[in-house]
Amino acid sequence: MTDQSDGESREPGSPQRPDHRLERVERAKGRLPGDTRVKIVRSSEFRRRKGYVMATEGALAPHTPIGRITDRLRGVLFGRRLRTEDEAEERVSRITGLAIFASDNISSSAYATEETMRTLVLAGASGLALTMPITIAILMVLGIVVTSYLQVIRAYPKGGGGYIVAKENLGTLAGLIAAAALLIDYFLTVSVSVAGGLLALTTAFPELDPLRVQLGVGFIAVIAIANLRGIREAGVVFAGPTYLYAAAVLGVLAIGFYRVLIGDTPAPVAPPKVLEGGEALGAFLILRAFASGSVGLTGTEAVADGITAFRKPEARNGGIVLVSMAALFATLFFGISFLATHLGIQVDATETKSVLGLLAQTVVGNGAYFYVLQAATAVILILAANTSFSGFPRLASILASHRFLPRQFAQRGDRLAFSFGIIALAVIAALLLVAFKASVSGLIPLYTIGVFIAFTLSQAGLVRHWARKRERGWRVRAALNGLGAAVTGVVTIVVAVTKFALGAWMVLAILPVIVLLMWQVHEHYRRVEDELTISPTTRVSLGQRRARIIAPISRIDRSALEALSLATGLVGDVSAVHISFDEEGASAFKERWARLGTGVPLEVIVSPFRAITLPLLRYLDAIDDGDPARPVIVVIAEFVPHHWWDTLLHNQTAFRLKLALFSRRNTAVVNVPHHLEDVEEFQ
Amino acid sequence: MTDQSDGESREPGSPQRPDHRLERVERAKGRLPGDTRVKIVRSSEFRRRKGYVMATEGALAPHTPIGRITDRLRGVLFGRRLRTEDEAEERVSRITGLAIFASDNISSSAYATEETMRTLVLAGASGLALTMPITIAILMVLGIVVTSYLQVIRAYPKGGGGYIVAKENLGTLAGLIAAAALLIDYFLTVSVSVAGGLLALTTAFPELDPLRVQLGVGFIAVIAIANLRGIREAGVVFAGPTYLYAAAVLGVLAIGFYRVLIGDTPAPVAPPKVLEGGEALGAFLILRAFASGSVGLTGTEAVADGITAFRKPEARNGGIVLVSMAALFATLFFGISFLATHLGIQVDATETKSVLGLLAQTVVGNGAYFYVLQAATAVILILAANTSFSGFPRLASILASHRFLPRQFAQRGDRLAFSFGIIALAVIAALLLVAFKASVSGLIPLYTIGVFIAFTLSQAGLVRHWARKRERGWRVRAALNGLGAAVTGVVTIVVAVTKFALGAWMVLAILPVIVLLMWQVHEHYRRVEDELTISPTTRVSLGQRRARIIAPISRIDRSALEALSLATGLVGDVSAVHISFDEEGASAFKERWARLGTGVPLEVIVSPFRAITLPLLRYLDAIDDGDPARPVIVVIAEFVPHHWWDTLLHNQTAFRLKLALFSRRNTAVVNVPHHLEDVEEFQ
Repeated sequence: MTDQSDGESREPGSPQRPDHRLERVERAKGRLPGDTRVKIVRSSEFRRRKGYVMATEGALAPHTPIGRITDRLRGVLFGRRLRTEDEAEERVSRITGLAIFASDNISSSAYATEETMRTLVLAGASGLALTMPITIAILMVLGIVVTSYLQVIRAYPKGGGGYIVAKENLGTLAGLIAAAALLIDYFLTVSVSVAGGLLALTTAFPELDPLRVQLGVGFIAVIAIANLRGIREAGVVFAGPTYLYAAAVLGVLAIGFYRVLIGDTPAPVAPPKVLEGGEALGAFLILRAFASGSVGLTGTEAVADGITAFRKPEARNGGIVLVSMAALFATLFFGISFLATHLGIQVDATETKSVLGLLAQTVVGNGAYFYVLQAATAVILILAANTSFSGFPRLASILASHRFLPRQFAQRGDRLAFSFGIIALAVIAALLLVAFKASVSGLIPLYTIGVFIAFTLSQAGLVRHWARKRERGWRVRAALNGLGAAVTGVVTIVVAVTKFALGAWMVLAILPVIVLLMWQVHEHYRRVEDELTISPTTRVSLGQRRARIIAPISRIDRSALEALSLATGLVGDVSAVHISFDEEGASAFKERWARLGTGVPLEVIVSPFRAITLPLLRYLDAIDDGDPARPVIVVIAEFVPHHWWDTLLHNQTAFRLKLALFSRRNTAVVNVPHHLEDVEEFQ
Repeated sequence: MTDQSDGESREPGSPQRPDHRLERVERAKGRLPGDTRVKIVRSSEFRRRKGYVMATEGALAPHTPIGRITDRLRGVLFGRRLRTEDEAEERVSRITGLAIFASDNISSSAYATEETMRTLVLAGASGLALTMPITIAILMVLGIVVTSYLQVIRAYPKGGGGYIVAKENLGTLAGLIAAAALLIDYFLTVSVSVAGGLLALTTAFPELDPLRVQLGVGFIAVIAIANLRGIREAGVVFAGPTYLYAAAVLGVLAIGFYRVLIGDTPAPVAPPKVLEGGEALGAFLILRAFASGSVGLTGTEAVADGITAFRKPEARNGGIVLVSMAALFATLFFGISFLATHLGIQVDATETKSVLGLLAQTVVGNGAYFYVLQAATAVILILAANTSFSGFPRLASILASHRFLPRQFAQRGDRLAFSFGIIALAVIAALLLVAFKASVSGLIPLYTIGVFIAFTLSQAGLVRHWARKRERGWRVRAALNGLGAAVTGVVTIVVAVTKFALGAWMVLAILPVIVLLMWQVHEHYRRVEDELTISPTTRVSLGQRRARIIAPISRIDRSALEALSLATGLVGDVSAVHISFDEEGASAFKERWARLGTGVPLEVIVSPFRAITLPLLRYLDAIDDGDPARPVIVVIAEFVPHHWWDTLLHNQTAFRLKLALFSRRNTAVVNVPHHLEDVEEFQ
C-alpha cells in the first residue's frame, strides 16, 4: 500500500475552497437528477486511495473536551490504538510466550508434590513411599498429553486445541463439551490462582485477610488491564516473576542435590503439626493421590488454544514453548518430589507451611533466599491466572467465529486483543471469587475436572484422527493416545467422584447448560443466516410499492413543519395525524391546520382517555388492515435539547412511539430532530 | 356526543370485506398520485365522527397476554380508565372534601395543645397559665388566615392559593418563593405525619419499631395508590377515620365539660414523669410557645390549592369546607386546651403519654373508649399525609401550567388524578422518611416554616390586592390582612430562629435552590417556545433542498437490500457506504456490490483501527463540509430478533450509530427494521 501525498490527489483549481490540503472526489450517479457529487474535504481524517477511502487515526479523534480527556486516559491505561496490519508485530516470541503460557503449569509445581503427599499420608508415613512412583506416572501422562498437543498444534495451527480436535474427529457435540469444559476451567483457573496467591499473601500478612475479596478483584482487574494492552505487553509485565520463581526453585533443587551428593544431607525442618492418617493404602487412595497430583497437568491446553499468539512459524514456536514448558515443569516437579521424599519432608496438618517452603527452609535455611522464594511463589500463583487470559479469549474467539458464542468474542479491540473475552473472563472470575469469598478450599474441588474432560476428548479425538489418516506408524500413535485417553479418562472419573459432593457437581451441572447455550447461539445465527443471506451471484433491481407516509403532529410549530417538509419530500402518500384529548381541541387544530395551507391531508383522532401511543399504533394497524403489504413510513419530529437533562422537561412521547414502532413490521421510522442550540448560536 | 351505530356509518356494498361491521372512510389526497385512500376498518377501536375519529377504550386494549395481565392488574389496583369529560363526576362533595382537606389540620388538634404546654412548662407550672391565652391568640390568627383564604378562593377560583396571590400581587419571585415553601411543606407534611403516626403505633406495639421505615414507606404507598385512583375514591377510603377521630375527641370534650358543669370534676391522671423547667417566662418563650402551637394552622392552605377538586360551585363549596374545618379545629383545640388546663393535666417528660391521651384517661377512664380514641389518633396522624396528596399535585399542576415545573405535572392520569405529582410526592416523601429514619424529632424542626412563609406572603399579597381594588371597606380588610401578615411574619421568624440549628436551615437553604430550578425550567420552556412557535396566521409552503441519502451497508443481505430499496424510494441522491477493516475486504465488497447491479454508487471506507461509528460520522462531516446546508438522511437497516435477549448476539452497531446521529444537526435517520420472526411464520 503506497501512501499518496495530498498534493497528488488534489484536483487543481478547486473553485470553492482554495485550501491546498483539500481533497475533492467527484462522481456522478447517473440515475437521479440533482447535485450528486460526494466530496471529501478533510484530509486529516481521510485519505483517498485507489478505489476506496482510508480512515486515518485522525478520524477517531474526539471532538469534545470530555471526549479528549477520556481518550487520553484510555491511551494511558491501554496504550495507543493498533492497526489490524500490525497484528504480526504484536505476537510474542518464544521467551515471552513461555512466560505467558507456562505460568499456570509452572505454578502448579508449587503444590503438585504436596497435593500428592497430602493424599498418600492418609495411609500413614509409609504411604509417602509412593510419592515418587506417582510423580513419575504423572510425568508420563504429561509426556503423552504434551506429545498429543504437539500433534494438535501441527494439525490445527489456527488454534482451538481440545475443542477443535474433538469437533473435527468426534463430532460437534464432543467439541462443544470439550469447549465448555475448558471455558469453565479457564474461569476457575483465574479464581483459584488468585485465591491461592491471596492465601500465600494473607499467611504472610494476616492483617490483609479482611480485604481478601477486594484484593482479589483488584488483582484480576490489573491482569485484565495488562492483557487488554495486548498479549505482548502482558508478557513483558509478567515474564519476570515467572522466571524468578523457576530460577529460585531450580536453585533450591541444585543446592539440595549438591548437598545430598556431597553427603551434607540436611535434617528436614518439621511442620507445625505433622499430618498422618490411618487409612489403608488401597487402589482408590492411590488413584486419588494421582488425581490430586495431576493438577500439575493443567495449563498445557493453553498453548494449543493460543497458538495464534506466537510469531511465525506459529506451530513451530508454539511446539518449542510447549516442550520447554513441560521440561521445566517436569524438572521442578520431579526435583521437588525427589528431594522432599529423600530428605523426609513431612506434610503440615495446619496448612500454614507448604512442602516447598519446608524443603527450601531445609535446604537453604531461613534467610533472604527463602523469603525471595516465598514471595516469588505468591506472585506466580496469582500470575497463573494470566495463562487463562491468553487461552480463554482465543478459544472464545474461535468458538465465536464458528458461531457458538456471540460474535463480539471474535472482534479485536483497539490493541488487537480479544477485549470482549478478556473482560468477560475478568468479570465472571471476579464474580466467582466474590461468590466463594476468595476461599481456595471452596473453589479447588471445582477445578481440574474441566481440563481433564478436555484432555480425554482430545486424546480420543486423536486416536480417531490417526485411524483415519493411517500414516506411517499410526498404530503406535493411536495406541499412545488411546492410553492417554484411558488414563486421563480415569483421572476425570476419579476427580469427578472424589470431588463430586465438594462442588464438582456444579461443574457437571453447568457444563450441559453451557453446551446447550452454545448450541442455541449457533441455531440463532444459522436461522438469521438462512433468512438474510442472498446468493453471491444474485442481481437485484430495487424498487418497492409506494409507501404510506404518516406524520404524527402534536402541535404546529417549527419542529413539526420540518418533519412535514421532509415527509413531503419522500416518495409516497403523506398524511398527518393529530391526537386531541377532546373535541374542542380537535376542531381548533383542524382550523389551524387548514389556515396553514400545507396541502397535506390531516386526520384528527380524539382520545378521551388521554392516551397517545396506543391509539396511534391502532390507527396504523387499522390502515394496515386495508392493505397489509403496503409499507408504512412514520415521520417523527423530535426535539433535541442542548443539555441531556432538559429532556426531563419534555414529554417522551416521541421516544415511546419510536420504541413501539421499532417492533412493528413493514414500518420504517424517520426521525427528524430539531436542535434547540441552533437558536442560541444563530439568532 | 351521540353514539353512531356501526350500521349507519358503514358504506353499503364495500367490495373488499363483506363484514357488516366494517367502517370505511375514504378520501383523496389530490396532490400525489397512487393509492392515497386511508381506510379505517376496525370499528371496535375507532368510530368515525363528523370531522374526526374517536378512539374508543378498545383502542387501548393490550394485544399480548402479558399486556392483558398487566392491564387487568392495573385495573384492580387503580380502577378503570376515566374519560376527560367525566372530570366533573370525579369531583368531591363538601362532606368528602372536608375529610380529605381537613385531615391535616384536624389531626394537629391531637398535639397543638401539647406543643404549647411543653414550651410553656419550661418556665415552671406557672407558665401553663398562659396556655389558654396562647390558644385564643392562635385561634385568632387562624381566623385571620381562614378569612383571607376565603377571599383568595373567591378571587382565584382556579386554585393556586398562596402562590397565585403572591404572584399576582407581589410579583413572580414572591409567588415562586411561596410556591417553593409550600412544596417543601407538602413533602414534609407527608413525612412528619407518617412518622408521627408510626410513633403512636410503635408506642403501642414496640415490637414493630425495627420495621418503622418499611411500614412508613408502605403507608405512603397505600395513600399514593388510593390517590392515584382519584381524589373521590381516596376521600371515600379516608373519610371514616377523620370523622371517627373528630367524633371521639368531641365525645371526650362533651363528657369532660358535662362532668365539670355538674361538679364531678375528675382528678387528673398523672404522666409517668412530670416535665418541669426553671426558665424565666420571657417574651421569647411565649413567642416560642405560640410558634409551637401554630402547627395547628397547617393544612389551611390545602383547600385554596385544591379548590378545583370540589364540585361546582367550587369557590362556594371550598369556602364552606374551609370554614367548617376551621370551626371544627377551633372547637377541638379550644376544648382540649381548656379542659387540659382546667383539670390540671401535666406534660409527660418521657413523651410516651400525650396530653390528649391523659385528658381522655382522666375524663373517660382506661376503657374501650380510650383505646378507640388512641387508635383513631394514630390513624388520623398518618392520614394527615393525605391532605398533601390532594394539595401538592394540584399546586404542582398549576405551576406546570405556568411552565415553572415539568409539564408532566399538569397531565391527568388514567383516573384523572395528577398522577405524576402524586408519584413524585410519594417518592420524595418516602426518601425523606428513609433519610431521617422515620424520626419525628428529626423531621419536625423542618416543618411549618414553609407554610408560614406562604401565609405571610399571601397575607401581604392580599394587602396589596385590597389597596389596588379599593372596594368598599378595603381599609379594614387591608388592615386585617396586614395584621395577619405581621403576625405570621413574626411566627415565621420565631420558627426560623428557634428551629434554625435543629434543621430549619435545611429548608431555608433548599428554598432558593427550588426557586432557581423553577425559574430555569421556565426559562427553558420560554426559549423553546421562542424557537418553535410560529404565528397562528402563518401559511407555509413545504419543500426543501434535495437530500443526500446515505445507506451504511455492513454486508449484503436481505436486510440491507430492504434498506437500500427504501432509500432509493426517497427523493434525493442515494449512495451506500461500507466500512471494511482491511483492503482485501474492501475490494471483495466492491466486487460483490458491482455484481449486485443496484446502480447505487458505493463508497468503501477502510478503517484500520476497526472503528465503525466514528469514521462513519466523520465521513458525514466531511460530506457536510462540502455543502453544509444540504439535508442528510441516513438509512439504517436494523435487525429485530424475535426475543429481546437475542439482541445480545448481534452487534449493536446500528443502535450506537443511531444514538450518535440523534444529536447531529440537519440529519434525519430512517430505521428499516427487519423482523426475524417473519421466517418462522412464513417459511
